[in-house]
Amino acid sequence: MTGLMRSWIESANAPDTDFPLNNLPYGVIDVNGSAHCATAIGDQVLDLHALESGGWLDFGGALQTGAMNTFMALGPDAWEKLRVTLFGLLAEGAQARSGLEKHLSPLKDAKMRMPFAVTEYTDFYASKQHATNVGTMFRGAENALPPNWLHIPIGYNGRASSVVVSGTPVVRPSGQLKGPDDDAPRFGPSRRFDIELEMGAIVGRPSNGPIGVGEAFENIFGYVLLNDWSARDIQAWEYQPLGPFQAKATATTISPWIVTAAALEPFRTSTPPREVPLLPYLHEPGPMLYDIDLEVGLTPDGGSETILSRTNYREMYYSAAQQLAHHTSSGCPMRVGDLLGSGTISGEAKDSRGSLLELSWGGKEPVEVDGGTRSFVEDGDTLTLRGHAAGDGYRIGFGECRAQVLPART
Amino acid sequence: MTGLMRSWIESANAPDTDFPLNNLPYGVIDVNGSAHCATAIGDQVLDLHALESGGWLDFGGALQTGAMNTFMALGPDAWEKLRVTLFGLLAEGAQARSGLEKHLSPLKDAKMRMPFAVTEYTDFYASKQHATNVGTMFRGAENALPPNWLHIPIGYNGRASSVVVSGTPVVRPSGQLKGPDDDAPRFGPSRRFDIELEMGAIVGRPSNGPIGVGEAFENIFGYVLLNDWSARDIQAWEYQPLGPFQAKATATTISPWIVTAAALEPFRTSTPPREVPLLPYLHEPGPMLYDIDLEVGLTPDGGSETILSRTNYREMYYSAAQQLAHHTSSGCPMRVGDLLGSGTISGEAKDSRGSLLELSWGGKEPVEVDGGTRSFVEDGDTLTLRGHAAGDGYRIGFGECRAQVLPART
Repeated sequence: MTGLMRSWIESANAPDTDFPLNNLPYGVIDVNGSAHCATAIGDQVLDLHALESGGWLDFGGALQTGAMNTFMALGPDAWEKLRVTLFGLLAEGAQARSGLEKHLSPLKDAKMRMPFAVTEYTDFYASKQHATNVGTMFRGAENALPPNWLHIPIGYNGRASSVVVSGTPVVRPSGQLKGPDDDAPRFGPSRRFDIELEMGAIVGRPSNGPIGVGEAFENIFGYVLLNDWSARDIQAWEYQPLGPFQAKATATTISPWIVTAAALEPFRTSTPPREVPLLPYLHEPGPMLYDIDLEVGLTPDGGSETILSRTNYREMYYSAAQQLAHHTSSGCPMRVGDLLGSGTISGEAKDSRGSLLELSWGGKEPVEVDGGTRSFVEDGDTLTLRGHAAGDGYRIGFGECRAQVLPART
Repeated sequence: MTGLMRSWIESANAPDTDFPLNNLPYGVIDVNGSAHCATAIGDQVLDLHALESGGWLDFGGALQTGAMNTFMALGPDAWEKLRVTLFGLLAEGAQARSGLEKHLSPLKDAKMRMPFAVTEYTDFYASKQHATNVGTMFRGAENALPPNWLHIPIGYNGRASSVVVSGTPVVRPSGQLKGPDDDAPRFGPSRRFDIELEMGAIVGRPSNGPIGVGEAFENIFGYVLLNDWSARDIQAWEYQPLGPFQAKATATTISPWIVTAAALEPFRTSTPPREVPLLPYLHEPGPMLYDIDLEVGLTPDGGSETILSRTNYREMYYSAAQQLAHHTSSGCPMRVGDLLGSGTISGEAKDSRGSLLELSWGGKEPVEVDGGTRSFVEDGDTLTLRGHAAGDGYRIGFGECRAQVLPART
């Protein structure tokens, strides 16, 4: 495993920064009302739009677009070229320091926009412990895991228009609700509004037919943290027979920085042993999961934060590469900017579960937070996801994926 | 009901043309490799791109874009203005004839492209007879209709990248298949590849929060025919618990001309009586369905066509406006270019069923076609959807929605 790459920006050399020179994640910042592609380095943001317009970089204008899609579409050679160029500009001892300083600004003041335009959004269901927990609650322990689960990276199409960047408030949804003893449904605010701690993989290279797992891995540009907000009561009534729809369409919050597959390369790890053999089209030619520590915290309005759960991305049974390969198996075309949610990530320990549904076991065991307890999310609560891969003396972090829940519309 | 509006283009006055002056559908044609917005009139195509660049029309360049999205985004005043302007240019006795003739070309030679960029695609399940047929086959007659069906316009998110224009060949998909007696799934070509006869509604005005049914109706720009290709065997194994995924991701074929809500206005009709009361957010303020005759034909490779089914769009239990209102109920943002499939349209008679699954009753009663029988679609078959609303001495037609099935990739 490589060590810290030192930068002339001193804050990037701190062992606890999310953004050492090794990381160089991509995001979009607001500069006087216009959207600029940028990278984070230590406690600073570097304006890549300004760097390209100033002649420091040349990607045919792809960094002067207000979203990372155009740059991603340039392909892996461009991805590598930008990363190497930025290493050269930002490494300790680089000559460029004086010219670059005017394009730096404090990260804490940055107003982040969506880092890319989400072309389509797919959400998977690939943590075995999560599927087992949810299945046990809904169908009993003996039928917990659906019969197809160990064979297929189960997924469904989500709603790209609902994906928002960290910091965007989320309004509690209303919808059709029907309890098991109710004669008919009623329409009202969800009472079981929940989080789902996930990772999102971003497709950076298009495909137009079935692709293998190895090619799928190469086509993923990078990753974000992802909170798939879920109205459990709307879902329970609507989801048979065609799956979740309005329960999942209110909002999906992503972290503002795309951490590249290149930055995560030293943290590759294997999916767990297969319990039944996978069909050949899902075989991984190498380790394609990542060792990324994850946590989710809940902060009541005016209160202090409680960490609800700590888990790790390596808990997934299927990697994003396997999910993407399966996604193309019927010939489904994939495009630059497609976002693939991993599915809720839950470990075996109770405090490593990735949703309140699981943490409170359907509301039967409320969890303690500052000033009270929670079965599900309450109005005013702020939910924050964090994640990082831990290297030797440095870490590759994702920043925060955060949103406050506002009361339902009246 | 209005009668035929006569045009100086004689073929537009024939009672059996799909494209009288009353219609004026919008599509995109290929002109020497570049995409031009256009309308169909009788047996001719009128190049709207050329008309705008030539100063006959002025929509700020919206018709010079290669897709109808930019024009749709201008909103209802622009929609009305273009329609009225074209009436003025094309009506019998109009002065413009000599100037316009050079922008006309034969419809039969037109190479049609996608009429708009599909932003996101949602597919519903809103024909009661279809849901009853499918439910009877899968769960028995007593549990045919899911408990939520009479309360919710059930839908799921589909895959926009898979939507293709009429004429595009469709490759038989492969996927995971597992019969009820198989120990494990295998990967191979679908053996139960099917059609679904649907209408597609196109969102022309965005919304960013819940909207009522009346507003939803106003936000729909127009309609297309839609064939939602479905691999029944892939679907049977994958769809629990999160709904159809790869079974529906191979292709969705749409007709090349968007027939506007304005053209269909004389053919508005009401949804059938409610069997249980709907919640108020789904109440229709007026008739929001349309009386549109539909048919689907199957032509074996080298053979002649058999009409498999004749039905009507008024068979829907829910209108597109109700579907769109429900779609926004959780706060889901809708954007210009969103496509909403109605769901398979089946009537009560056997020969009015909208899928081979229903027509052949799951393969138990194969249907006769030229030179043989069909339980599902075979390689080389061409499937053609047609539709029109029948007026007094004229009709508003959709043209053809057609595709040939090619063998699976090897």
